[in-house]
Amino acid sequence: MVVSPLAPKKTANLPPVPGARLAAMAAGINYQDRKDLSVIVFDAPAFVAGVFTRSKCASAPVDWCRENISAGRARAVVVNAGNANAFTGVKGKIATETTAKSAAEAIGCAPQEVFLASTGVIGEPLEAAKFSDKLEQLFDRAVEDNWSDMAGAIMTTDTFAKLSTANVKIDGKVFTVNGIAKGSGMIAPDMATMLAFIVTDAPVASVCLQSVLSAHVGESFNSITVDSDTSTSDTVLVFATGNKNTSGIDEIVDLEDPRLAGFGAVLAVVMRDLAMQIVRDGEGITKLIEINVKGARTDNAARIIAKSIANSPLVKTAIAGEDANWGRIVMAVGKAGEEADRDKLAIWFGDVRVAVDGERDPDYSEEAASDEVKKQEVKITVDIGLGQGKARVWGCDLTHEYIAINADYRS
Amino acid sequence: MVVSPLAPKKTANLPPVPGARLAAMAAGINYQDRKDLSVIVFDAPAFVAGVFTRSKCASAPVDWCRENISAGRARAVVVNAGNANAFTGVKGKIATETTAKSAAEAIGCAPQEVFLASTGVIGEPLEAAKFSDKLEQLFDRAVEDNWSDMAGAIMTTDTFAKLSTANVKIDGKVFTVNGIAKGSGMIAPDMATMLAFIVTDAPVASVCLQSVLSAHVGESFNSITVDSDTSTSDTVLVFATGNKNTSGIDEIVDLEDPRLAGFGAVLAVVMRDLAMQIVRDGEGITKLIEINVKGARTDNAARIIAKSIANSPLVKTAIAGEDANWGRIVMAVGKAGEEADRDKLAIWFGDVRVAVDGERDPDYSEEAASDEVKKQEVKITVDIGLGQGKARVWGCDLTHEYIAINADYRS
Repeated sequence: MVVSPLAPKKTANLPPVPGARLAAMAAGINYQDRKDLSVIVFDAPAFVAGVFTRSKCASAPVDWCRENISAGRARAVVVNAGNANAFTGVKGKIATETTAKSAAEAIGCAPQEVFLASTGVIGEPLEAAKFSDKLEQLFDRAVEDNWSDMAGAIMTTDTFAKLSTANVKIDGKVFTVNGIAKGSGMIAPDMATMLAFIVTDAPVASVCLQSVLSAHVGESFNSITVDSDTSTSDTVLVFATGNKNTSGIDEIVDLEDPRLAGFGAVLAVVMRDLAMQIVRDGEGITKLIEINVKGARTDNAARIIAKSIANSPLVKTAIAGEDANWGRIVMAVGKAGEEADRDKLAIWFGDVRVAVDGERDPDYSEEAASDEVKKQEVKITVDIGLGQGKARVWGCDLTHEYIAINADYRS
Repeated sequence: MVVSPLAPKKTANLPPVPGARLAAMAAGINYQDRKDLSVIVFDAPAFVAGVFTRSKCASAPVDWCRENISAGRARAVVVNAGNANAFTGVKGKIATETTAKSAAEAIGCAPQEVFLASTGVIGEPLEAAKFSDKLEQLFDRAVEDNWSDMAGAIMTTDTFAKLSTANVKIDGKVFTVNGIAKGSGMIAPDMATMLAFIVTDAPVASVCLQSVLSAHVGESFNSITVDSDTSTSDTVLVFATGNKNTSGIDEIVDLEDPRLAGFGAVLAVVMRDLAMQIVRDGEGITKLIEINVKGARTDNAARIIAKSIANSPLVKTAIAGEDANWGRIVMAVGKAGEEADRDKLAIWFGDVRVAVDGERDPDYSEEAASDEVKKQEVKITVDIGLGQGKARVWGCDLTHEYIAINADYRS
């Protein structure tokens, strides 16, 4: 497997988060000779918050997490790769129950405190019995300093493991925010994302965690798209292991607590970093495309227009071919359905304005425009010219390799 | 250029429509050594109706047609290929005025009776002066028996000319309905279509023409998609050359006229035939995909779900790879945003049911499903299981050839 040319130059080195231990193993769920089953276990109940796919055909583990997230307490996460346990009917539901029950027995907690995620082929029954008896040894083996092992074990078509870490200072104490994610195709998260797991030792209660997670998902995971296809399994879970005893500071339990915004800002950095790593591993990517839309009637209108550009096969193939075909950007603005006035539109590749006032820029230079799309990271800016609404999304080009990866994914 | 493997085995042979003459020539607008300028001229004012793109960035000729269609009278159509005259600002507007004025002078009519269409690159100024002086000789040369010549001259990335004809009997007299169309990429018509021109000698007044055209565009042109990208130039124009004198029967001028439904039904056949020829010439197509959705809450919900499947890059690449990956159909149903209940869903490839009641069919056979997707025409049926809403759309697979065509379209 060739690593994406847009992979980060350096992989983040994640420090331990006190109270969270991790382990991974090869359970033979679908892959040969690679780790595909992984866990995080919390020494004491952690606070938890989550956002999930809006797909009407959500996977069984997503159903399971949704049911149990409101209690706000977590003792473990169990993740398998290779099988999404999606569209698996009653069998799928039983598989989640079996997995949670086995994990709960091994840890000594309620099954409802075990969170689950599955990723891989849709529609294939997941035989939980094949790995549920291995969970006990997996939990026994879990250690704090093991983030990259788990980040590798949750991958499917990913070409690199996605890790991120940041520090946050609260009341003079330094806490860690660690995150891992997976995702490469079927990426157009809708108020959710692909699999991502973030753990902090800051003492942030679940309701506060949920608040900052929801606040920042729009600008991070929901602002990326690889192929406009929204997964049945999108899940972001955030856990906080800290409490007054472990942290020595008062827990953040109130949405009005002024310390929450500071924590949220650091969480946002980790979320955004993970989201960017997902799009940088977009299936078949050769170019990262950043799309800025401004001057729309509302931020939401700007987002819809930006996504229309990012998801257009004709825009994506033009960028793949290093063709500065800005007419296709006009097309994508026009089809988005949001208010636009052709004669007020302006378009840039990088800093090179190619169109203004509804026609080609008077100073248009094919060479200058071309130079911009030859870059590995292509920046497109569109000014709708109507209002103050703005949005930024990230996508990638559409290449032969995307076709090759997906024309025969199951075999 | 290789002709699409899905091209019709036989090209329709269009008879003359009395009162309509056609001509085409090589005007060097963008292509070398091929006809790219064509006209239809009506000996007497014809009735006319049209539907156009809903793009917010519609082309200058679309603006021109919209302004003039309500008068309901046409003396000519002028079409150029190679340049869409879209996003060309004031220059584009002047180009339409210049073209219409030159044509009107040559014929001896008002510019407003001249309808225009342009197709090709977006954003490049169209120099009407380069061909407007050639219009007079083109009109002089126009003859009734020349449909295939014009069908060829309106092509861009099309690999075959698209022609259709049918007869309609009204009051015991037989009339002709002839249609030509172009389109291969940037095809996801929205209440309109790519370029299509339909001419009949039946005496049907403009208001009645518009009524049956609008009634049938949903099930024909608006039910196809090649790449989810909606053009700035989509235009369907229908002309009727007949009147009481030429036809010997009373004109259809009343929407309640019982003869209108019969005419509309035949018009619908021609529209559907042309729409199918466009999708059969989808850029890079190796498989035609017919998607039937039933059991949705409403017909509109069914259409949105069907389009979500037809436009999913992951569904399209799976079909290209002859992989019966029905999990991706579940994904596309789930992301469509319309009501769906995972546990009531059923899915078929051809007559082979692969999923039912929210999981893989108990009698699932990979071989049987595989045989269905190996066919050149793949049929997918989805039963949502909630209501009576149904829809049918046609799409095509997503192949290496689509990428190759579009990665460097302009050079």
